[in-house]
Amino acid sequence: MRITEIRVTPVAFPDPPLLNAMGVHEPWALRSVVEVVTDEGLTGLGESYGDLSHLERLRGAAQRLIGLEPHAHHVLYAAVAASIGSDVFVDQHGLTGAGSNQKTVDAVFSPFEVACLDIRGKAAGLRVADLLGGPVRDAVPYSAYLFYKWAGHPGAPEDRFGAALDPEGIVAQARWMTETYGFGSLKLKGGVLPPDQEIEAVHALRDAFPGLPLRIDPNAAWTTATSVRVGKALDGVLEYLEDPTPDIGPMAEVAAAVPMPLATNMCVVTHAHLPPALARRAIGVLLIDHHYWGGLLRSSQVAALCDTFGLPLSMHSNSHLGISLAAMTHLAAATPNLTHACDTHTPWQDGQDVIAPGALRFVDGAVPVPEGPGLGVELDPDALARMHEQYLACGLTRRDDTAYMRRHHPDFTPKRAHW
Amino acid sequence: MRITEIRVTPVAFPDPPLLNAMGVHEPWALRSVVEVVTDEGLTGLGESYGDLSHLERLRGAAQRLIGLEPHAHHVLYAAVAASIGSDVFVDQHGLTGAGSNQKTVDAVFSPFEVACLDIRGKAAGLRVADLLGGPVRDAVPYSAYLFYKWAGHPGAPEDRFGAALDPEGIVAQARWMTETYGFGSLKLKGGVLPPDQEIEAVHALRDAFPGLPLRIDPNAAWTTATSVRVGKALDGVLEYLEDPTPDIGPMAEVAAAVPMPLATNMCVVTHAHLPPALARRAIGVLLIDHHYWGGLLRSSQVAALCDTFGLPLSMHSNSHLGISLAAMTHLAAATPNLTHACDTHTPWQDGQDVIAPGALRFVDGAVPVPEGPGLGVELDPDALARMHEQYLACGLTRRDDTAYMRRHHPDFTPKRAHW
Ligand SMILES: [Mg+2]
Ligand SMILES: [Mg+2]
Repeated sequence: MRITEIRVTPVAFPDPPLLNAMGVHEPWALRSVVEVVTDEGLTGLGESYGDLSHLERLRGAAQRLIGLEPHAHHVLYAAVAASIGSDVFVDQHGLTGAGSNQKTVDAVFSPFEVACLDIRGKAAGLRVADLLGGPVRDAVPYSAYLFYKWAGHPGAPEDRFGAALDPEGIVAQARWMTETYGFGSLKLKGGVLPPDQEIEAVHALRDAFPGLPLRIDPNAAWTTATSVRVGKALDGVLEYLEDPTPDIGPMAEVAAAVPMPLATNMCVVTHAHLPPALARRAIGVLLIDHHYWGGLLRSSQVAALCDTFGLPLSMHSNSHLGISLAAMTHLAAATPNLTHACDTHTPWQDGQDVIAPGALRFVDGAVPVPEGPGLGVELDPDALARMHEQYLACGLTRRDDTAYMRRHHPDFTPKRAHW
Repeated sequence: MRITEIRVTPVAFPDPPLLNAMGVHEPWALRSVVEVVTDEGLTGLGESYGDLSHLERLRGAAQRLIGLEPHAHHVLYAAVAASIGSDVFVDQHGLTGAGSNQKTVDAVFSPFEVACLDIRGKAAGLRVADLLGGPVRDAVPYSAYLFYKWAGHPGAPEDRFGAALDPEGIVAQARWMTETYGFGSLKLKGGVLPPDQEIEAVHALRDAFPGLPLRIDPNAAWTTATSVRVGKALDGVLEYLEDPTPDIGPMAEVAAAVPMPLATNMCVVTHAHLPPALARRAIGVLLIDHHYWGGLLRSSQVAALCDTFGLPLSMHSNSHLGISLAAMTHLAAATPNLTHACDTHTPWQDGQDVIAPGALRFVDGAVPVPEGPGLGVELDPDALARMHEQYLACGLTRRDDTAYMRRHHPDFTPKRAHW
């Protein structure tokens, strides 16, 4: 079986004004949809970032993959690496850690690898989870992903989610999300308000949801001293503290001083970060993300490495669509040491998707592993066309939360080890 | 697809009197052949050790696997782990490092996992190498495995390999092996004669084969001081020095003092050994062995871990048959960082095998990846029956090189950090 054609289609979908340490989500979230077609008539799906420079890298890599076999993981990877050369992608939003050549290769490889696994599953009549060692759970628990947010985008009417700018707003948002989706864990995106206000919000969540594991992720907005202070203030309250401060060294300092494990999707984001982070005991939980760890197989290899080092896993999420949710679910289902509920932005996607409805659903906060062969999801061509039109019309070509924030608040400072 | 039947058949085949630090190979080498049968009529093959206590563990585990799916790697592994409980197997020959519960589970799981990959490959029309990421090389280079040896077993006529008890004998053996198989690397099993005599043998090999990478493996027969002395004496001569001395701590001391990388299949033999060995920089090459690292997928995960830590791989071999050679070849072909020629005992097997001839051959010292689906080898039922009869007739139930040596040399002392 050979790859005969690859289509890379950028799409956009409305995104609410979710606040973070670097700014605020723009009105449109960008993604790319990858379709890999074989000479046997099978098509596989992948999903990745939608920034223009990433799209260009995807398209450059795609040319190199024509004629190769979907099973030839290592050969496909080498072809992508060759197309990237020594190039380094650095994201503008600054929320997923440092850029590197390895991370760039892995990020470009990822959607093609997912699509090839989709093809391989379809060819063999197996789920992608079966190709990754088989599911160890029938459904994958996800966490509610709570955001401070404005009532609506500037100049636009209030969105259906409403404002959340204080503990009451966050608790109300959590109540809506848990009631709608059944989530059994709560994560608060922090780094937005001064730390004491965010501590107050976490305590409010603890009071309102006494049984649910809680996390806060300020995206490295705090100094080590603040991180330690917050960690101690939230002793017994947090399941884990995510990326309180930037970089492996400071994270190791904080880890040694606070009672809960530190989690990261910022200071350990590529293979080269693992040896020093493990040596310095900087983290207690790794948030894997197949979008930048080189796809599903490479992510499951990282999971095996973490198992050898006794490191449990959770999963990171950026704004995404259903292809990614399916891929995340297959990976998480087949990863024994992924023992924390995964992150997802799905609720903020507000029903927009490129896949046909029905394959993915939340039951008690968990997504059952799709049954169909491969990823178990199918593209909706009309939705893809519509969302591609949205991409063309919206005019955005890269995610830049800081620039958008500054358009409305010119004095805004991105928060990196700020408080 | 479900597993409906598993057959575990012990076999024996004649083995020459190969000398090592713990004694001498007995007249028969023991192996177990595992056949896993599914409700779709597919049969997969695995091969493992033949010691009686291991056979009992294999049979105990086999019962737990009936009814499970060959794709359900994690579920199969958990079933084997449950059957082992807290049991620990410690081999009698002492040549593959310390026993542990994890290593016991992995060793018992391995032949079933290989058989399930064989089934999965057959079901999908793919080679096992394709299921492990696809081959990055068409043929896998193996190393000549040179042994000091007696002319024949005591009381038996001289075997066809003849004696090798000095540098001339080793060079002659190397010449025969390279001429017959085309090997492009030479490994000497050491720990048999005083170190200076073995240094002399390595120099004789260097003189006789100036272009070939050389290794020596004394199976931890030396002290740290001797290891450092030998390492310095062989500066510029050895590709790597394998297990000069026991345990991670002393290996780290030696590694810091000698010019060549240290390799091991003794001080790092299970997942728990990797973090301390990496932290202490004890080794420069890991000799992977799917027979005790939990099968092919888990071995490829260890390979990925080693890649993250910049550690190249080679491959360990015990006496084995063609099922294992096929499995080793698929794994090595699909492992990018397995950059050293693998070990194999194949020449000492002297043509005896349980598989039908033709699928495996050496071309210029390398075994081309078998073409057929799965492992690409088929059982020869007559050969299996004959070698099982040999097992029953030979009376051996476990490998014990020391006891056999002492029967003929009662004053023999196993060599562990001895010289
Ligand atoms: Mg995060
Ligand atoms: Mg060895």
